[in-house]
Amino acid sequence: MLHDKDKIAQLDAIFYARSIAVAGASRNESKMGSLWLKGIRAAGFKGDLYGLNPSGGEVFGMPIYPNLEAIPGPVDLVISCIPRTGVLDLLDDCAAKGIKGIEFFTAGFRETAEPHWIEVEKEMARRARRSGFRIIGPNCIGISCPEHAIPYGGSTWLPAAGSIGYVSQSGGHVGKMLEIGTTRGLAFSKCASMGNGCDLGGADFLEYFAADPKTQIIAMYLEGPTDARLLLDNIRKANSRKPVVVWKGGRTEAGARATAGHTGALAASPLVWSGALAQAGAIECQGLDEQADVLLLLQQFGRLERANVGIICGITDGGGGEAVLSADACASEGITVPPLSKDTHARMLDILGQVGSVLVNPIDVSQRPGDIGALLNVIESLASTPYLDVLVIYENMDILIRFLGTAMAMELNQAVIKKCKTLSKPVLVVLPPGGLEPDRLEAESQFVAAGIPVYPSMDRAARAIASVTRYYERGNKP
Amino acid sequence: MLHDKDKIAQLDAIFYARSIAVAGASRNESKMGSLWLKGIRAAGFKGDLYGLNPSGGEVFGMPIYPNLEAIPGPVDLVISCIPRTGVLDLLDDCAAKGIKGIEFFTAGFRETAEPHWIEVEKEMARRARRSGFRIIGPNCIGISCPEHAIPYGGSTWLPAAGSIGYVSQSGGHVGKMLEIGTTRGLAFSKCASMGNGCDLGGADFLEYFAADPKTQIIAMYLEGPTDARLLLDNIRKANSRKPVVVWKGGRTEAGARATAGHTGALAASPLVWSGALAQAGAIECQGLDEQADVLLLLQQFGRLERANVGIICGITDGGGGEAVLSADACASEGITVPPLSKDTHARMLDILGQVGSVLVNPIDVSQRPGDIGALLNVIESLASTPYLDVLVIYENMDILIRFLGTAMAMELNQAVIKKCKTLSKPVLVVLPPGGLEPDRLEAESQFVAAGIPVYPSMDRAARAIASVTRYYERGNKP
Repeated sequence: MLHDKDKIAQLDAIFYARSIAVAGASRNESKMGSLWLKGIRAAGFKGDLYGLNPSGGEVFGMPIYPNLEAIPGPVDLVISCIPRTGVLDLLDDCAAKGIKGIEFFTAGFRETAEPHWIEVEKEMARRARRSGFRIIGPNCIGISCPEHAIPYGGSTWLPAAGSIGYVSQSGGHVGKMLEIGTTRGLAFSKCASMGNGCDLGGADFLEYFAADPKTQIIAMYLEGPTDARLLLDNIRKANSRKPVVVWKGGRTEAGARATAGHTGALAASPLVWSGALAQAGAIECQGLDEQADVLLLLQQFGRLERANVGIICGITDGGGGEAVLSADACASEGITVPPLSKDTHARMLDILGQVGSVLVNPIDVSQRPGDIGALLNVIESLASTPYLDVLVIYENMDILIRFLGTAMAMELNQAVIKKCKTLSKPVLVVLPPGGLEPDRLEAESQFVAAGIPVYPSMDRAARAIASVTRYYERGNKP
Repeated sequence: MLHDKDKIAQLDAIFYARSIAVAGASRNESKMGSLWLKGIRAAGFKGDLYGLNPSGGEVFGMPIYPNLEAIPGPVDLVISCIPRTGVLDLLDDCAAKGIKGIEFFTAGFRETAEPHWIEVEKEMARRARRSGFRIIGPNCIGISCPEHAIPYGGSTWLPAAGSIGYVSQSGGHVGKMLEIGTTRGLAFSKCASMGNGCDLGGADFLEYFAADPKTQIIAMYLEGPTDARLLLDNIRKANSRKPVVVWKGGRTEAGARATAGHTGALAASPLVWSGALAQAGAIECQGLDEQADVLLLLQQFGRLERANVGIICGITDGGGGEAVLSADACASEGITVPPLSKDTHARMLDILGQVGSVLVNPIDVSQRPGDIGALLNVIESLASTPYLDVLVIYENMDILIRFLGTAMAMELNQAVIKKCKTLSKPVLVVLPPGGLEPDRLEAESQFVAAGIPVYPSMDRAARAIASVTRYYERGNKP
């Protein structure tokens, strides 16, 4: 795949900016620009950091410069939080300073559908191109690069650094995905909220992510990109190296109406989009949770080509209904839950005994409530079968804790985690929400810390498994 | 609808048992029977409570009687936790004592597919019928009646008393629904895990719930009932008075295989079941979460005949993507998100201003971050429009707290709750999971305490709204 080396270098200069200036920071600590400045410092950004405001002064102990020219050193990235009336002058200053890129939190352009502001947005792009720097936005929350300690949207916290590159026409969705990531263990190489994308669009970020050695999985949220043909072409190219996971918003008439007011997007038919995305090889998702589910699976399991699933449920009790529910959820998504071989069945009988147990697959272990040894034996036996590709442990924390108490339930989980680390087969845990949510969250965080992906329902786990295996079945190689 | 008055009286005598004996309680405190006995007392059961074990003694300060005959007073309900080899003798003792009902936690009968134990199960039913008392189970967790302080499965806690009657072929699913209820605010009249249903089956409980004045909503989990024809007939009859919400497990081949090991059910084709349930007028759900979602809506909103939905999002930020996501979710379920009238749109402009806002429907209020007054004005304005039936407030707690801090975010929620109490229109809140889960759970509990149903995603809220409105659109009157 040929990359535009200039563009890669341009985006590297932004994601790894050595210095950042926030336009619109001011003495007033509650202004967005001031908060943004404070956030970047709090997140641990190591480069030079400046506030910009004609009235000067200082905020949070940082000096505010009256303009870019007054800043002593070079500035790579400018973050604009100023009113829209000032953006063209700011761009002229940026040109004079020789910056590499500017992101505009500033909004009120194409998305208003007002001719004047549509024209201003076009002029913004023209000025940046003329001067050789790039624009992210306007009407966006900009970029984040966790490994370089650039937080997202002036947050004081950094997402975990990892392999997922996320670009989105909604800044809110990026933010929410990063928040979900803190709980579920998603880790990101780079993120970008591209807003109206007057200069850099989805196709550009896609090209960058495809070339970026830190990015192994590419995720997008799209509404109605203006560069659709190029974008689809770049998805196809990127997909030959890294999976591309796309959520297309505005897939209904009501949704499309909302995109028009949001990013000023014109909606194409959802069927056309689905078809085009499939042809480009992307994994299509229908929402944020589904996208997070797929990303988590790709991140933790990598290449998953087949998914004959072995399911363990009824840990302490309730396994009969859980077995039915789990099998239904898998089968509804086209995932095979193969019956046990005679050998495996005999081993299960040895470990668990007969009475009341469902010893097909899913395996109901509730005949041995709290018997950690038996549970570990079941896990190990199933992991050693050649006809199962993935193990799912369905764990109802409510019942675990009601039966065993919190301490023993957590001990059981630690034993499971230790066992899973010895297995060569991927293991996924389902922890359905219920009545003891703080304990469930604690259990989730322990599994996640051990690299075991956790799903809130078998339905969602099954759908993610199906999406990923279908992707590889289609012959995708990344 | 004609009810079998005898059966109603028989089940009343069980759900409102004046005295309970637990067979299989023993000096050993860790035995299931002992724990069950302890749980019922801890839950606050006011009637007489006895342990039963040939070896006598006492446990947790309660005397254990060697047999039923030795108990001084009458016994209404027996809970059997003894091994299956003793059940026929126990039933003879029950007959002699003149009990009203017995529930068998004891398992290992029809579900094993072993001819001997299938025959024993049949004999159990015969003996109970001969003696005029009823059996729940075997292979079940039995009943709960929160208002009468009978907990579920020997739990030490009671579900909230309310209007939902739940009967299930999976004891685990009942337990999980009750746990979900503690978080989401579901409240129950009665529950029954019917297990193999050798005597009392789903049709019987359905008939009872239809007649029971405390039950206003009926919920079922079915695998393969042996009394399918009668059950469907009773669903049809019950449905003329109270909505019946059915989840059918074993709707796939893999799921059906699991039902065979669980309740010994024979699966009919899922399409046949779906058709029959639709014809009987039931609301069909595909899983536990979906069933909880529908029950919550029925419980909080009652009769919901139309659902033109008004959606408020972007509370402090991120509203553009949330608007698209919400509209897509509704439209995908066939729910109308009507465009605002010119009047309402003008009012929204007055309150929120133009720049960056999505002022169609969904309404993005993010132009006024943290402006509680503006938010309440938007809520009140939308509630007063005649063309909206339900309001949805989409609230991303992560962003609320990152922008406003926890205290002000909670204050905002309290103001919303206070406002909602003055409205005549139903309001539903969506609180998607993310990074600040403990705070989100706290917010959920506050909304729930105020009677406002909370959903974890717009997809799930939309599906529940669609299920309930379609139910009433079909001409159901309850």
